[in-house]
Amino acid sequence: MLAGQRVLVTGGAGFVGSHLTEALLDAGAQVGVYDNASTGQWQFLRDAQDKYAGNLLQWRGHLSDTELLCAAMADCGLVVHLSANADIRHGVEYPDRDFEQNLGGTQIVLRTMHQLGVKRIAFASSGAVYGGHHGFAISEDCPFPIQNSFYGASKLAAEALISAYATTFGMQAYLFRFVPMLGERYSHGHIFDFVKKLLANPDHIEVLGNGQVRKYCVYVGDAMRAVLKGVEMGDRPVNVFNIGNRSCYTIDEVVEWVAHDMGVTPGISYTGERWVGDNPDMNLDAARIHGLGWVPQVSVREAVHRTVSYLLDNPWLLARDS
Amino acid sequence: MLAGQRVLVTGGAGFVGSHLTEALLDAGAQVGVYDNASTGQWQFLRDAQDKYAGNLLQWRGHLSDTELLCAAMADCGLVVHLSANADIRHGVEYPDRDFEQNLGGTQIVLRTMHQLGVKRIAFASSGAVYGGHHGFAISEDCPFPIQNSFYGASKLAAEALISAYATTFGMQAYLFRFVPMLGERYSHGHIFDFVKKLLANPDHIEVLGNGQVRKYCVYVGDAMRAVLKGVEMGDRPVNVFNIGNRSCYTIDEVVEWVAHDMGVTPGISYTGERWVGDNPDMNLDAARIHGLGWVPQVSVREAVHRTVSYLLDNPWLLARDS
Repeated sequence: MLAGQRVLVTGGAGFVGSHLTEALLDAGAQVGVYDNASTGQWQFLRDAQDKYAGNLLQWRGHLSDTELLCAAMADCGLVVHLSANADIRHGVEYPDRDFEQNLGGTQIVLRTMHQLGVKRIAFASSGAVYGGHHGFAISEDCPFPIQNSFYGASKLAAEALISAYATTFGMQAYLFRFVPMLGERYSHGHIFDFVKKLLANPDHIEVLGNGQVRKYCVYVGDAMRAVLKGVEMGDRPVNVFNIGNRSCYTIDEVVEWVAHDMGVTPGISYTGERWVGDNPDMNLDAARIHGLGWVPQVSVREAVHRTVSYLLDNPWLLARDS
Repeated sequence: MLAGQRVLVTGGAGFVGSHLTEALLDAGAQVGVYDNASTGQWQFLRDAQDKYAGNLLQWRGHLSDTELLCAAMADCGLVVHLSANADIRHGVEYPDRDFEQNLGGTQIVLRTMHQLGVKRIAFASSGAVYGGHHGFAISEDCPFPIQNSFYGASKLAAEALISAYATTFGMQAYLFRFVPMLGERYSHGHIFDFVKKLLANPDHIEVLGNGQVRKYCVYVGDAMRAVLKGVEMGDRPVNVFNIGNRSCYTIDEVVEWVAHDMGVTPGISYTGERWVGDNPDMNLDAARIHGLGWVPQVSVREAVHRTVSYLLDNPWLLARDS
């Protein structure tokens, strides 16, 4: 279904977007990547460019450049809207930023789709919309959650707006609620921080919290196969999918794995405190997407290994502000 | 607890706001009413002004006038944020308006509260956040809904932002999800339309839909007592309350009631079609607020009667664009 179709990917030069772009190109789609390179990197698309030059268009600009966005979206059958403020941690300092960037960007994308008659949108939401600690695997139709982060709240607001567009104007929406993703080109988050710290000081590392916090994650390539599966098979006006693994690691485990992959043996100290809005133990029940035949193929340990290897091979990424 | 406290009510000159202002003044609070009179009417507060002049302050302006808003909010212990685009029906023509006004206004109010250190907010949400047809009484922690109107989506987005503020900055939030309210000063909605049509032509009335659609509603005075009860007794960081009646009417019934109260006997025809985003049969389970001792005292029939009587006594209201 995606073969031969024109797809626009906002944020397509980012960590997640570049993997999705590759997956779409592999599936035979023509892909337009729209990115302002604020956190994305055009070089993330170099391999895709070499392999699929004729099917890959690059649009360099902000979503607020409506003329450029209209040009990029013309004749597209599907928009995958990934561009967002992906760093959940700074809501306390900038309570307006997540809404401005995540909801504001989504508003622009939907308005433009409506104007051009583009009828299908896939959206990168987050397990953060489920709010705080649950202690069990959360399904897509779990009880109405209370938001505990500006990031999660902005993603929920964007989901709500997308759903209203879809039900009002006969569009079709695919909302993917991801656990955190790992893999090549990963460029912020706790493993990024661990690698950076251990390069600076291989003998000692300070860790937020107490080391026992569990973290669920999924390999980005597996997650992008889930997106393609969901978009191809979801037949409701609004299709919601959790995307996550059943397995997880503790912070202590992942520090050990990272250290092992880097060949170092640091001492560890703990701050005891986590950052406000952190949602550890975000265990999503992905039975719905499993029911469509999706199975993750890369283990959590292997996903961490690929992440660390990529960062060590690409020190320029670590040199950036995370 | 509210006695002697300063409370700011945004949208306090509106249908709902003027009733809340009276209820707060009756409880001994000092009330600042902030309103831009776009749909509110300062004359709605005339009785309150006569009775409680010294405890009632009027602030005439838009929420975007941050200097005025800061002055109005200074030393307040509670903000009740009611100002909103209250007309759910025009989302199709203006998909951005609900978010701009409802979420945008909420953002300004929260930012100002955070700046001034005001720690408590009550918010007029809506049963519309539960999305489409359910067929049973919906409780506050029902399964995660899919939005089917821009109005409901904007209220959900505002709830999410308020919750993120409350959990991040140690504020306390009270989110009231109302069924539609009726009573004196009601100034838009289907009964408003029926009265207007029957004044123009007492012999015939055209009705949207098929007449069998059930509508739940609550008398505004009862609803405002619920708000005071919830604010006084809710002790969580984020307190969510459904506010509604167990009883309802069909459109056929209410047309008959309105006609009876107006002393007319019209023929009725049906369009068969409803407007997009209409959520009929929005039956909220209000067990949580009942558990705090709230019981509505005015029947649905009496609420309709008071609504119609007020409109007939105040033809200037009907002459406005609804």
